[in-house]
Amino acid sequence: MYAAEKDNLTIDDTLVAHVERTLAEYLDSRQSTIAVRSSALGEALTALRDFVLGGGKRLRPTFAWWGWRVAGGEQDGPLAEAVLRAVSSLELIQACALVHDDVMDDSALRRGAPTMHVAFADNHRGRGWHGVPERFGVCAAILLGDIALAWADDMFHCSGVPVDRLTAASEPWRGMRSEMLAGQYLDVLTQARGDLSAKAALRVARWKTAAYTVERPLHVGAALGGADPDLVKCLRTFGADIGVAFQLRDDLLGVFGDAAVTGKPAGDDLREGKRTLLVAEGLERAQRLGRQAEAALLRDSLGRADLSEEDVTRIRGTLVDLGAVSEVETRIDRLTESAMTALTAANLTDPATSRLADLAVTATRRTH
Amino acid sequence: MYAAEKDNLTIDDTLVAHVERTLAEYLDSRQSTIAVRSSALGEALTALRDFVLGGGKRLRPTFAWWGWRVAGGEQDGPLAEAVLRAVSSLELIQACALVHDDVMDDSALRRGAPTMHVAFADNHRGRGWHGVPERFGVCAAILLGDIALAWADDMFHCSGVPVDRLTAASEPWRGMRSEMLAGQYLDVLTQARGDLSAKAALRVARWKTAAYTVERPLHVGAALGGADPDLVKCLRTFGADIGVAFQLRDDLLGVFGDAAVTGKPAGDDLREGKRTLLVAEGLERAQRLGRQAEAALLRDSLGRADLSEEDVTRIRGTLVDLGAVSEVETRIDRLTESAMTALTAANLTDPATSRLADLAVTATRRTH
Repeated sequence: MYAAEKDNLTIDDTLVAHVERTLAEYLDSRQSTIAVRSSALGEALTALRDFVLGGGKRLRPTFAWWGWRVAGGEQDGPLAEAVLRAVSSLELIQACALVHDDVMDDSALRRGAPTMHVAFADNHRGRGWHGVPERFGVCAAILLGDIALAWADDMFHCSGVPVDRLTAASEPWRGMRSEMLAGQYLDVLTQARGDLSAKAALRVARWKTAAYTVERPLHVGAALGGADPDLVKCLRTFGADIGVAFQLRDDLLGVFGDAAVTGKPAGDDLREGKRTLLVAEGLERAQRLGRQAEAALLRDSLGRADLSEEDVTRIRGTLVDLGAVSEVETRIDRLTESAMTALTAANLTDPATSRLADLAVTATRRTH
Repeated sequence: MYAAEKDNLTIDDTLVAHVERTLAEYLDSRQSTIAVRSSALGEALTALRDFVLGGGKRLRPTFAWWGWRVAGGEQDGPLAEAVLRAVSSLELIQACALVHDDVMDDSALRRGAPTMHVAFADNHRGRGWHGVPERFGVCAAILLGDIALAWADDMFHCSGVPVDRLTAASEPWRGMRSEMLAGQYLDVLTQARGDLSAKAALRVARWKTAAYTVERPLHVGAALGGADPDLVKCLRTFGADIGVAFQLRDDLLGVFGDAAVTGKPAGDDLREGKRTLLVAEGLERAQRLGRQAEAALLRDSLGRADLSEEDVTRIRGTLVDLGAVSEVETRIDRLTESAMTALTAANLTDPATSRLADLAVTATRRTH
């Protein structure tokens, strides 16, 4: 008996709390039944548990849950609990993605705390162990990310969802993981190639974010609910559009967001050299209009870790002047509109439709 | 219709060729159906395919196949083909383990060719791309290892094995992956802590090698064949013992092996600072006998990349003198004996028993 149940709150009402309870239960059971007994291993698995439970919007399980509900799935009972476990497993894929991403980018901080590889390196240093602390940190983070990825599968397959439904959901589940990893690779490659085109930025947004964050989670949830192909098609269109719009909003916040709200310094996306549609649009417009100085400013600033507040302010002004900001805003509007059209075409009933519409607005109109 | 079939050779007779065919078919189908279309992605997936098909003893699928056969599974027909796919997926877990291991150790060569992260760094350098080549190489290798791990699950779950058998095999499958990753972490940790005890070396051998290479693959195969608990128990005992013996043989070859046969310079395990039972035994004996100079030699040599041929020869002599080598040989003998006792207790019929006995001998008496 957990808090939400006692208060007669349904999973619909307190989804994030239910997802986190389910994850905690799963991670505790894995840790207590793993055959490899060692206190040192327990310490590492606790670090993974803390990371998974330490925050995040739980977007993927949320979209997957509403995919289930839209397809007619119940909001409580044993089957709903099983589906909750299946959709919560998406957070373990996300844990792998984040932990490995931080190693790949050599990021020091995540959610204001040291990243996994940095925390393990600090621990190594503090205990005066042998070898290079940074290398130990990277090893631990790679292995814990691998464990999270393996356990995501285990949690999904052992969720208790009946086999026929699980089989139906396996196809989008497989697609989702491959598309996320492939999207990440395309992102790394786009950066290496110095490809600043809008086309490349949109392709990364399509696969790394949209498919993985919205489209496929909805698809997984709908398949768990036994959705027919027409409904799946509508939901995927909705998901792909909202997913890209979500990424474009993220790109805008990365340059124009309020640091006090987003939790990271404004302009950090520029310093990190992120290839976004926003910058790509700015650059393509500057080149088309022959505004060489502005094109050079954008090209040369991207990836410069030492950009000052003033530099960032100047780049913001340039992106506004060039019309890149309003172009991206227009795209977000158009994508949200076509997403809503797809949702209407699905002819769904409430509360599912209004919750999905709310999620779409939250994802694309948010300030953090 | 494939070559082996035309020649009327069964899967039993040409198992490795069948495993490799199955892997090639699976990787080709994944590559051609992945939704993310990009020639650059295709290039990366081809590198993963070449890595998977580029060599290896295929030990894990082999043990798993014989687990299936021992449990009464057929050697041909549609079900045998499905089981072949399920057991071949173990090679994709191994691909992840090797690619990530090479990143963690920063190894330059594997099977005489550049490791994945080095090959991608070279490619980056050759094409004059942006950013640091080594970082690009690490990113590509981490992501391709992740893809291999995810695809291992997909291949296992989509093998076509009937659901009840697949469900029975899922428990050892899950155990195997967790034990391998946990064993790898214990290995990294043992090294960081400078723990040179025999106990620590045996613990790593138990989880990183024995469970993952022999015990669990046999268990997975036996479960696919519907083995009863008594048979599973015998096979796991056999597998755990043979698996540890396999690692101890590997440790001996790493110091005493003929470079012309093993394919790597003798003494490389010493230069890399591997914590083996062999060295742990030598050290514990030297300390117990008060032979300080020999203890110091062993302790100080471990992990020294600049060890000369003469240094290695001196360490070999010391390990022989201290009785560490004969102690490890005795252990291998005892483990092989108890493994064979477990096998006999299982009361199996041929050819399965004699094949397992052959595999045990190959694994523990090999010269490379």
